[in-house]
Amino acid sequence: MNSTRFDVLGIGNAIVDVIARTEDDFLFRQKMRKGGMQLITEADATRIYDAMGPAVEVSGGSAANTVVGAASLGARAAFIGKVKDDELGRVFAHDIRAAGVCFTTPPASQGPATARCYVLVTPDGERTMNTYLGAAQDLHPNDIDPEAVGAAQIVYLEGYLWDPPHAKEAFLKAANIAHGAKRDVALTLSDAFCVDRYRAEFLDLIRSRTVDLVFANEHELHSLYQTADFETALKALREDAKAAVVTRSEKGSIVVTREESDAVQACPVARVVDATGAGDLFAAGFLMGLARGTDYRTAARLGALAAAEVIQHLGARPETSLRDLARENGFDV
Amino acid sequence: MNSTRFDVLGIGNAIVDVIARTEDDFLFRQKMRKGGMQLITEADATRIYDAMGPAVEVSGGSAANTVVGAASLGARAAFIGKVKDDELGRVFAHDIRAAGVCFTTPPASQGPATARCYVLVTPDGERTMNTYLGAAQDLHPNDIDPEAVGAAQIVYLEGYLWDPPHAKEAFLKAANIAHGAKRDVALTLSDAFCVDRYRAEFLDLIRSRTVDLVFANEHELHSLYQTADFETALKALREDAKAAVVTRSEKGSIVVTREESDAVQACPVARVVDATGAGDLFAAGFLMGLARGTDYRTAARLGALAAAEVIQHLGARPETSLRDLARENGFDV
Repeated sequence: MNSTRFDVLGIGNAIVDVIARTEDDFLFRQKMRKGGMQLITEADATRIYDAMGPAVEVSGGSAANTVVGAASLGARAAFIGKVKDDELGRVFAHDIRAAGVCFTTPPASQGPATARCYVLVTPDGERTMNTYLGAAQDLHPNDIDPEAVGAAQIVYLEGYLWDPPHAKEAFLKAANIAHGAKRDVALTLSDAFCVDRYRAEFLDLIRSRTVDLVFANEHELHSLYQTADFETALKALREDAKAAVVTRSEKGSIVVTREESDAVQACPVARVVDATGAGDLFAAGFLMGLARGTDYRTAARLGALAAAEVIQHLGARPETSLRDLARENGFDV
Repeated sequence: MNSTRFDVLGIGNAIVDVIARTEDDFLFRQKMRKGGMQLITEADATRIYDAMGPAVEVSGGSAANTVVGAASLGARAAFIGKVKDDELGRVFAHDIRAAGVCFTTPPASQGPATARCYVLVTPDGERTMNTYLGAAQDLHPNDIDPEAVGAAQIVYLEGYLWDPPHAKEAFLKAANIAHGAKRDVALTLSDAFCVDRYRAEFLDLIRSRTVDLVFANEHELHSLYQTADFETALKALREDAKAAVVTRSEKGSIVVTREESDAVQACPVARVVDATGAGDLFAAGFLMGLARGTDYRTAARLGALAAAEVIQHLGARPETSLRDLARENGFDV
């Protein structure tokens, strides 16, 4: 196996989050499913933006958040995703590069604008997301740089890539290159409704070992196996996946393989300000742990620490050096 | 005197802030004057943005922040300022309207992009600002709606308007209309270096009673009278201005007229996260007090409360309802 240039390379939708605080009543009136991610048209985007309160813009995107978190922990990280050559596209590119992530996917010069996610944060800290995919829809297999993918220890892919038309081909191309170079491929199931849209395909990815490691939260796990019983779903995942991590918010996480199952506590936080990015940053810490050769349990603890940082402020990107935070908490990163 | 449609109408540069945390060393290397505002070219903007860390975008602009703060306190507020019809211009317009402020200045369809201010926040909470004026330079006397200005109880103008070429004409037109309608005109001196650029003109505005009320912080006051002695500068201001408020950060504020001088304490805060907008929000509370007919002392206390909210988070726009906060603190707003 050749030496690696990257600890982790993420592929996902390149999105700028437009975040506003709101009340539950707003979600109800706008017919939004609280806690979920729904895809919206440009007309929906205009309607929702007009209706929502003053906002802040922060770069986002699930896998992008994860690689930024990994970079903040000291990882060598890269990202592949599509923006347009417009103001928000430049914002996305600036922010991910300024975070130390290698990002070289050429922006689209034509077509729809850079993707935006209208994130409504309710007083309980829950986030409800409305994504206009825009230029992210134009991610294409040609955007997958085989050299970069083959040089990454772990390739991390988001389930959301099943939404844009050509991104799943890009996903499969990347997974193929990674396995050809004897690298590991990780997948996050992204969202319970996303799982609902692509259940059979996701199960096939897992069972065929196109992915080596699966990240899921409880809702996604229940959706994947269409059961309300956690133990039943977890048992099914253990049979299907080479390895998996199930995150359970304040109840912590469980790392499973066919042979083992290990529960790890969450990091207590004073108050959840904005849950956006909790899963993304958990994955960042977990992947960084694996890249540094820790055991699953330590990786999950590092994931919990990174997730705890990001839910204590608005936005899904860390606001402090996660490496410093990890070292203060006794991690060797 | 006709009835008013607005409690306060602000005129200022329409700016989106691009905010990043940094260390003092970065300011030193970039040759920035800590705590100040410097005007930058488009080339500077590119250079600074490339060098700075991951950022968040939040609508800003001094007078715009003030009217948003006043609206959050329950005031009927309006704003006049120039954006371009581009993505950040739409962000600015959305945010100020979503805050409940009437904003009808038509965006520029040609010319430079919407103004941006690159705000660097150091660990001590101080902010250092680099402003690319862009489309804000195109504010013109034609953008002053005489009907709206004449229908506002207080017209609030920022000293920064002396920087764009035609904005001072717009400023003087607005002041003239306001006085013709027997309204009050307030001015913030904006920045010590801004005062340095336009000292004679600002003194003339004050002495000629083109403005009825002056807001200044200590640095601006010292710059206005070119003295390091606070009492000397304050005495000069009392002789020149009809009324003035001098803000002194954690030392509170002093409201002065020729006859009176009254010191008001600051609201203690646990930690200054980002000082951006402290003066703007003080003015918001003070103006709201005046609009509601309170005495200067109560107005200054309301200003201190609004300023305390905004320095406890990133960005210069309130993150909570200032009206609720004021009521919880015993104000009748």
